[in-house]
This record gives sequence, C-alpha cells and structure tokens, in this order.
Amino acid sequence: MNFSTILKPLIIIVFFVALCMGVPLMLAIYYKEPAASESFLSVMVSTIVVCLILFYFLRHQQIRRIGIRESFVLVALCWFTISFISALPFYISGAIPDFSEAFFETVSGFSTTGATILTDIEVLPKSMLFWRSLTHWLGGMGIIVLAVAVLPLLGIGGLQLLKAEAPGPTVDKISPRISETAKTLWGIYIGLTVVEAMLLNFAGMSYFDAFTHAFSTIATGGFSPKNASVGAYHSAFIEWIVIVFMILAGMSFTLHYKIITGKARQIFKSTELRVYLVVTAVCSLLVAADLYYHKLYSLHGSVRQAMFQVSTILTTTGFATADYKQWPAFAQYIIFLLMFSGACSGSTSGGVKLIRIITLMKLAVNELKYLIHPKAIMTIFIDGNVVKKDMIYSISAFVFLYAVTVLTTACICALSGVSVLTSFTAALSTVGNIGPGFGRIGPVENYHFFADWVKWFLSVAMIMGRLEVFTVMVIFTRAFWKK
Amino acid sequence: MNFSTILKPLIIIVFFVALCMGVPLMLAIYYKEPAASESFLSVMVSTIVVCLILFYFLRHQQIRRIGIRESFVLVALCWFTISFISALPFYISGAIPDFSEAFFETVSGFSTTGATILTDIEVLPKSMLFWRSLTHWLGGMGIIVLAVAVLPLLGIGGLQLLKAEAPGPTVDKISPRISETAKTLWGIYIGLTVVEAMLLNFAGMSYFDAFTHAFSTIATGGFSPKNASVGAYHSAFIEWIVIVFMILAGMSFTLHYKIITGKARQIFKSTELRVYLVVTAVCSLLVAADLYYHKLYSLHGSVRQAMFQVSTILTTTGFATADYKQWPAFAQYIIFLLMFSGACSGSTSGGVKLIRIITLMKLAVNELKYLIHPKAIMTIFIDGNVVKKDMIYSISAFVFLYAVTVLTTACICALSGVSVLTSFTAALSTVGNIGPGFGRIGPVENYHFFADWVKWFLSVAMIMGRLEVFTVMVIFTRAFWKK
Repeated sequence: MNFSTILKPLIIIVFFVALCMGVPLMLAIYYKEPAASESFLSVMVSTIVVCLILFYFLRHQQIRRIGIRESFVLVALCWFTISFISALPFYISGAIPDFSEAFFETVSGFSTTGATILTDIEVLPKSMLFWRSLTHWLGGMGIIVLAVAVLPLLGIGGLQLLKAEAPGPTVDKISPRISETAKTLWGIYIGLTVVEAMLLNFAGMSYFDAFTHAFSTIATGGFSPKNASVGAYHSAFIEWIVIVFMILAGMSFTLHYKIITGKARQIFKSTELRVYLVVTAVCSLLVAADLYYHKLYSLHGSVRQAMFQVSTILTTTGFATADYKQWPAFAQYIIFLLMFSGACSGSTSGGVKLIRIITLMKLAVNELKYLIHPKAIMTIFIDGNVVKKDMIYSISAFVFLYAVTVLTTACICALSGVSVLTSFTAALSTVGNIGPGFGRIGPVENYHFFADWVKWFLSVAMIMGRLEVFTVMVIFTRAFWKK
Repeated sequence: MNFSTILKPLIIIVFFVALCMGVPLMLAIYYKEPAASESFLSVMVSTIVVCLILFYFLRHQQIRRIGIRESFVLVALCWFTISFISALPFYISGAIPDFSEAFFETVSGFSTTGATILTDIEVLPKSMLFWRSLTHWLGGMGIIVLAVAVLPLLGIGGLQLLKAEAPGPTVDKISPRISETAKTLWGIYIGLTVVEAMLLNFAGMSYFDAFTHAFSTIATGGFSPKNASVGAYHSAFIEWIVIVFMILAGMSFTLHYKIITGKARQIFKSTELRVYLVVTAVCSLLVAADLYYHKLYSLHGSVRQAMFQVSTILTTTGFATADYKQWPAFAQYIIFLLMFSGACSGSTSGGVKLIRIITLMKLAVNELKYLIHPKAIMTIFIDGNVVKKDMIYSISAFVFLYAVTVLTTACICALSGVSVLTSFTAALSTVGNIGPGFGRIGPVENYHFFADWVKWFLSVAMIMGRLEVFTVMVIFTRAFWKK
C-alpha cells in the first residue's frame, strides 16, 4: 500500500465536490436562507482551503499510475470522505441536527439509494433539498464512470463484462481512453437529466422540482423534495415521464451512446436489455392485473401504478406514488421479488444486476443438460460471445458475497430489535441501493426509527452495495495487506 | 425414455410401502380403531393385489440396467406414487377428509418436512398418527440411500462430493456396491432410532410417543403426535435427548459409520462437520444470550430453548418447544437465517446443505484474493482435496435453481393472497423441508389455511426440495426428451 499515490486524486475529488456546493449556496442566498447559506459557505470555503494547503505540500509529487490495491482504497475512501464533508451542511445548519442521520442521508444520496431519515421533508430549506438531490446526481455520475470505465479495469466481478477488451454483450469500446469515455458518458447523463427536467417543467412542475426530480431519476436515486414523493403532484403525465426516464436510467449507458450515434437497432441485440424490458413489461402486467382485479384503481390507473412501482424498484430508484404495502399480496410479492434484482450493468442502478442473473440462469440450464449428457462440453454464450469460465466464478462469488452482505446487514438491524421482515428488507434495500422496503420502511415511511448505531452500519451497507461489495471487502482480506 | 425399465422397480417400492402399512394396521386393531383398520386394510390389500397383477404381466421382463433419464423419472415418480397411495388411509378413514390435505400431509411426511395441515393433531386415531410418523421414517431411509448411494451416481449437483470415486470430504467408500452401502446405512439408521426411542421411553414417554418422536427425529422430519410437539412433555430431559439426536441426524451418515468402526477421530477432519458444530454452537449461544438478556427464561432454560430451536431449524426437523415468534427480534432473525442453510450432506436434513455454502465461501475468498493477484492460479481445497471446477459450477447452479424454486413457490403462495413474509418463509420451509416458518406458519401454527390448490404446489415444492431440485427440474428440459 502506498497511501501517497492516492492522496492527490482524493483531494481533487473532494475539491470538486466542495465546488459543487456553490450551487446550493447560490440557491440559499437566492431563497434567503441564512442558516443554510452560512453552513454551505463555511464548509465549502474550509474544504477548499484545506485542499489547497494539502495540494501545496504535495505540489512536487507527481501523479503516478495508481496500483490495484491503491485503487480499491481510493474508491472506498472517496465515497466515505465526500459523504462526510457533504453531510456537514445538513448538520451545521441544523437541518438534520443528528450527525449520524446527516451522514446516513448523504451516503443514501451519493450511493443513489434514496432511503431517508427525514420524517418531514418539506420543512427543510430549499437549498438543502437541492443539495440532497444533487448528491444523488453526483453519485450517479461517479458510478457511471466507475462502473463503465474504472471497475472493469480493476476486474470487479461480473462487470468485467463491460471491460473494453473482453468479449461480451456490453463490450463496445466507446472510446479507448477512460477520460474520453467519461466525457461521452457524462454528456449523455447531463443530456438525459436536462431533457427530463424540461419535460417535467412542461408537465407542470416548477424548475426547482423538475431539476431535483430529474437528478433523482437519472441517478436512480429516489430522493424527492416532497413528502409524498412523485405522488404529490397527482399528475398522470408527470408519472409517465418519470416512468420513461427511470427505465432509460436503468439501461446501460453504452446503449444510450449507440442510440445517439444512430446504431439504435444494435441495442436490441443486447440480451440484458431484452431481459430488462421483458421483466419490466411482464411484472408490470402482473401487478396491474392484480390491482385491477382487486378494483383498487381504474384500468389506466392500475397500469400506471404498476409500471411506476415496478420500474422504481427494478431500477432501484425508490420513488413513491402509492403505498404498495396496501396492495394485494401478489402485487406486493412481485415488488419484493424485484428487490433481489436491479437493472442493467453500466447503469446507475444498484443491486445484483440482470446480467449476472442471466449468466447464472444459463449456467443452471447447462448444468441440467449436463446431467443427461455428462460428457458434453458446455459453453455459455451471451449475445453470441463465449462467457469465460473465470467470469462465471466471479459472478457466483459476487452473488454469494452480496447475499452474505444482505444477511449480515439484516442481522445488525435485528440486533437492534427490529422485526425480521423490516430487517431483511431494509438490508435488501440498502445494499441494493433501492430505498423503500416492507414492514416499517414502506414507501411512505422512513429510516428515522433505526437506532443511531444501526444507521452507521446501514451507511456502510449502502456504500458496499454501491461499490459492488467486492471493492470494499477486498480491503479487509489478509492478501490485500501482505507484501 | 424407456418407461418399461422403471415400472418394475417402481412396483417393488410401492409394494414395500404397502407392506409397511401392516404396522399401523396392527396398531389400529390393537387400539380398536375400526375406521382406521378398515382403511389401512383396504388400501394395503388393493395395492398389493395391483402390484402382484402388474408383476405377473411383467414376469418375463428382465430388470435391466436403468439409464440416466429413467433414473430421474423413477425417483420423481416414486415419491409421487408412494405419497398418493399413503395418503389414501387418511382420506378413506375420514381422518383427513380433504384429499389435497391428505396428500400434502403425506408428502410432508415422506419428504421429512413436517409441515402439517392438522389443526388438532390429537383427535386423530393413534394408528393414523403412527402412520404419519412412519412416513417420515421411511422417507428418511429412502433419502439416506438416495443421497449417499444413488444421487451421486446420477451426478446431482454438489452431492457428487459424496461420489465414491471423487476426491472430497465425504468421499469414503463405505462399500463398493450400492446394496451393501444401503444395508450399512440402514443399520445405523435403525440403530439410532431404537436408541433414541429407548432413551425417550426411559425419560418418561410412552413407547408409542417414544417411537413416533424417534422416527421424526432421525428422519429430521418434525411430525409429533402432540399438538404442542415436544413441548407437550415439559421435560428438560426429553428435550435434551431430542436435541442430541437431532444433531446426530444432521450429520452425514458416513460419519456415523466411522464412529462405529472405531475411526471416531477421523470424523473431525471433516470440514463440513466442524462447520456444522460451530454453527450450532455459535447460533445457540447468540439466541440463548438474547433470550436470557430479555429475561424470557432462566439460564438453563435459555440455553436449552436456544439449542432446541437452533438444531431443529438447522437440521430442518421442525419440532417445537416454544413459539419463537414471541422471542426478541434478534433471536427470531437467527432462526430465519438458519432456514437458508440445512445441515450436512449425506444426512436426512434438507435445504442447501453446509458443504455447498462452505464451497461458495471458499470460492468467494479466492475471488477476493484474485483481485489482488490477477495472475495467480487459485484452487479450492476441502479437507485437503481439490474441489474440481465442474463441482463449483454444479454448486453455483444448484444454489441458483434452489433460490428460483423458493421464490417461485413463494410467488404461488402470494398469488393466493398470503402475505409476503408468510409466503416467503412457507417457500423456504417447504423447499428446505423444515416445517415451520414466520407469519401465519409459526411453530405453533399450521398450513391448514392455505387454499387447496396452493397445497398441491407446496407438495411439489417439498418433493423438489427433497430431491435436490435438479432431479425434478431436469425432467422438464428439452434435452431430457430429445433422442
């Protein structure tokens, strides 16, 4: 481990996040929110000063190529450091007077989980609400680059499918260099956000609401400045816009790139995309049928509510338009089932991700064939490319460690006295970066009631889920620290 | 597929089960239960007659070597046929007037699940209660042979570890020929049952109660002739005896063989056994601490209750001495967690089984190391033997299909309007052959409230779980029916 190589990149990222605080600061001044503007200004200025001082001391140090171990520490450290600093304005201004809660909320933001500890969201100053949604957007931006460009180079389980030189569905080298790739992806990310915000504004939202919701949607986060989330607007038009953009955000961003470059037809060759669309359609249909059968909504209402909840859970966004805990058991169960999945790799969504489930499904089908033809040599193909054996190990190990993380997180919740259902779905929801769950953390409830010490563990769970579990766990192995 | 080759073995097994009905028949006569004795007699006689007639027609057919495909069909067909025939006495005598329920109860018996639809167990004639427990014992006997001698030869996922010629922890060829192996295993099985029954009788149970409970324990079933299960005796001595024998029944039967042949020291070389004992000890300790901390029982009471519930769930037995749904959240969660596991391979217990979890854990640790040393070649060792790559695929595929079976079964329960928690744990419990769950199917509740059509699906789930999922699923693949 060579900590000195990671210090400079860490400072740069923290510096960038501090600069971003300038936006809510300006809003705080504009909306005349003195406590908020003071806290943003003080955190922003002091962070920038500290960064500059550190930079001055490190001015002669060259940015060297970062090693594998250092990359893992950098990624984990980044997420914790920026969450810590970004939580300060909430805490200092008194918007969230408990630091455990402020930290939880910020981690929930950057990890694009969207789980909140706020019992009344609307009492917060507007600048604070904006900052809250902005953490989603920045986190999502970071994840896109991490998932598409950085993690594959580190060889993180399953996502190697995205690795530029590996064969696979999402192989496509957008650009040979990370920085180029990042720029293209950010362009798409910003583009989608702006288009959604404009449409939401057109549909009747204020610019403030439109942008905060667009931040949340494209990052598959789930924070809303309204207590009733997207449901607050009682507008079918707004809900449909959000549905469409949630589904878009759940797709791999390399696919968006193809659409833009006129290769739209190619994207349907992606098995993962096809499965994603089929799962969304089938689950929506099942839920809609159940809702309509039980006469909870009109036909259009059933379809809209079903599609909204299915996409919000599958893409791990976590917006609410209805309390699904009041729905019939079957509709509830479909929602519960989707919490095990997550959308496409290379998107901002969390969870296990469909590509891994597809690979395991193909493995299982092969194993069944193998029982009949024990001497046959089986190969798994995805989009016409062979999936390497190492990849299958990596995916199996990932899913196993993911399950271990979920069950351990739930164990901690249970230790604090929370019921089995709430503990289990809170773990599924935080590790999967979803937001709502079942039991006491339904879509119209929140995480406030958890003990403070549990909130710290849940914060770690959100970061672990966000960083594909492996990235954080590897730091705690003996092999990592051995020379 | 050549159905004619499987007909003869099928008839032999059905014939054997019909003969076994002689025991409850004699009890029915002894206890003067006319309806029961009539029904046992009629089912027994007619089954034997049909078997003999079929045998007469097939008398010239030689018992040929059964092919792979035929073995799978035979195993699945056996389980369904004997369950069907064995359900008839319950139905005809009016003890269980609904045939869906009678079939469910019998499948629950043969699969050693122990889930019951009876709301009042004690009103049943004693001969019926005996038959109910005997199905456990016969099912467990079948499973021991199936798991140790037959399935490994068919190459069923993960349990190949038991395959005589493969390297692995439970490799030990007890005997080169299946029939020899079967005899040895049955000897141990019968021996354990008799010893436990004697001890239970010594501790105060009647012979009837002692044997029915011993049948249940050694088969890791869970049926009890008492409404309050083992808790009905309010005897710490009885509970400790049952605890010890549940733990013994959860071990691989090849290990018992070693103990008998004086190689007792060798058994602790088994990684699976060590993990099994450690998991039992640690979980019992955690639950006991939680119970004692919440002042629910005395110190001894806490330890006993904790050990009882932990072993009953881990070994997938499902006896009850307390309603764990009334326990604190953490203790409940440990019980919930254990429902994902199951005990050792080669035992009568159900579930995923520890050896598979251990292998995946080792795979995951290797993958983490691999991230740091991408060029290293990693091998997984268990008990000093290399685990072959094919085995790891097979285990990954098994765990995946197991999860798919659980989630699908839960989906069917939810479709009938049952809550998420009840549906999910009912599925975990039936596929894992445990018995109790959470929600409406706690340890002092039953499966009566499920709709009749759901009971059929749950019956299939129990058989699928019992036959290691693969065995049943493979019959539904295209490769199976292609020439």
